[in-house]
Amino acid sequence: MGRVTERRKVLRIRDGAVSSRPDTLVAEEPLEIRLNGKPLAITMRTPGDDFALAAGFLVSEGVLGGQQDLRNIVYCAGATADGSNTYNVVDVQTAPDVVLPDITLERNVYTTSSCGLCGKASLDAVRTTARWPLADTPQVRVTPELLASLPDRLRAAQRVFDRTGGLHAAALFSEEGELLDVREDVGRHNAVDKLVGRALQNGGLPLSRAILLVSGRASFELAQKAVMAGIPMLAAVSAPSSLAVDLAAETGLTLVGFLRGSSMNVYAGEDRIAVRAAAAQG
Amino acid sequence: MGRVTERRKVLRIRDGAVSSRPDTLVAEEPLEIRLNGKPLAITMRTPGDDFALAAGFLVSEGVLGGQQDLRNIVYCAGATADGSNTYNVVDVQTAPDVVLPDITLERNVYTTSSCGLCGKASLDAVRTTARWPLADTPQVRVTPELLASLPDRLRAAQRVFDRTGGLHAAALFSEEGELLDVREDVGRHNAVDKLVGRALQNGGLPLSRAILLVSGRASFELAQKAVMAGIPMLAAVSAPSSLAVDLAAETGLTLVGFLRGSSMNVYAGEDRIAVRAAAAQG
Repeated sequence: MGRVTERRKVLRIRDGAVSSRPDTLVAEEPLEIRLNGKPLAITMRTPGDDFALAAGFLVSEGVLGGQQDLRNIVYCAGATADGSNTYNVVDVQTAPDVVLPDITLERNVYTTSSCGLCGKASLDAVRTTARWPLADTPQVRVTPELLASLPDRLRAAQRVFDRTGGLHAAALFSEEGELLDVREDVGRHNAVDKLVGRALQNGGLPLSRAILLVSGRASFELAQKAVMAGIPMLAAVSAPSSLAVDLAAETGLTLVGFLRGSSMNVYAGEDRIAVRAAAAQG
Repeated sequence: MGRVTERRKVLRIRDGAVSSRPDTLVAEEPLEIRLNGKPLAITMRTPGDDFALAAGFLVSEGVLGGQQDLRNIVYCAGATADGSNTYNVVDVQTAPDVVLPDITLERNVYTTSSCGLCGKASLDAVRTTARWPLADTPQVRVTPELLASLPDRLRAAQRVFDRTGGLHAAALFSEEGELLDVREDVGRHNAVDKLVGRALQNGGLPLSRAILLVSGRASFELAQKAVMAGIPMLAAVSAPSSLAVDLAAETGLTLVGFLRGSSMNVYAGEDRIAVRAAAAQG
């Protein structure tokens, strides 16, 4: 693709001194995701891994659960004046028996659009649509020391961040701390969708022994994506929101925030953190 | 509202030592925005300033241009089992002559959903729907020194950030550097919508002499919101994306990134930055 970064001229001002130089920016382009030919959603994303992004998005929405649900993913060409392909529209074609969502609904509608809309309804919607309840997953258990080592491994693996400063990163680790995959995107939800979509493409769902690490905050949307992919543990470098914590508590997701140096906060699912051993060693 | 933050119990791990204590989290709840009774969009937001958020969102979407376009905004109550109001659904009722969008389209669809979808189409859509072309705005002109002073003023004004670490902030400043308004939200696009919506409610649109400062990155969406509100200058503490820079260049928006200490990068609209004077003084 070659469009993960783009160069632009920039006026640089440092202590009153002005210079003009080229700068590397993170690329951002719209991606329209179609489902069996019908437009479903548009996301602003960093080009690359577009099929994985589309597949992962549909895992988060509860449409896809594995390779068997997927017939094909293609770029949709043709409607520009010159008939060229912008590589910004993908069509996901599902197997015949896949239950399709009502695509007159907006994306991000996790609940009915009744006046009863509230955070609790959002939690219930995720819990009832999750294919792989986390309470049923194998008992992953890690030490605080292992968790503390992950952000440095993520930063070492980030290829684009240092050049642009404009990317969010998400990574999957094994319970032994091995980096399984890392994706970067201008939107952190896209980075997670790309990870999950690649796992689907590789037959790796559910990700029931993986740890998901994100470079920023942990929102409801990211916690929801972890739960929908069967990931038992979400760790964030920054703060979680109240609804992310509530969703984690409701579904059995382990949620770690403010993972910095040897410090962290565990907001839910603390049974997967081997704290007693750590305290005894400490 | 009293729901900007919420308290949760957290397991705190510091160098192997474990303690349990209450923690303050940023509140996140869904908000459904209806337009004349019909569902238009759902956003995950921090409760508070919900009417402003809804109004500002509709300025960004090109539906509202001023107080005269607005008949009323109300919370929508009733459909829960007990008939209570969740304060998570608002209905924006427009004046009779307001042109309404086709609400079968998804939010974030700035262009037709043809295969021609690309960044260029997104830029064109914003340029052609902007009510107040920035080239026509009064010639705002500020020094790098003034810009460099803004992030500290924003941080001083942030009320919630220090307690939760989970909020994005956006602020409006006058060209003399006076803080006009500041909003915080779990989503940075919501913080900007709240600023713009309050300006609409106060008869302050277009914001043709204001500087918009955001605490994080500058995406296409944020640049689009600035352009749609007639704001001539967007400054971000972190990196812009390629499409944000392209939109700024296309519409005449001044875009400043990496605004840190006495340093900054100017990506577009440099005629509004008094660099020669600064260089002479430097």
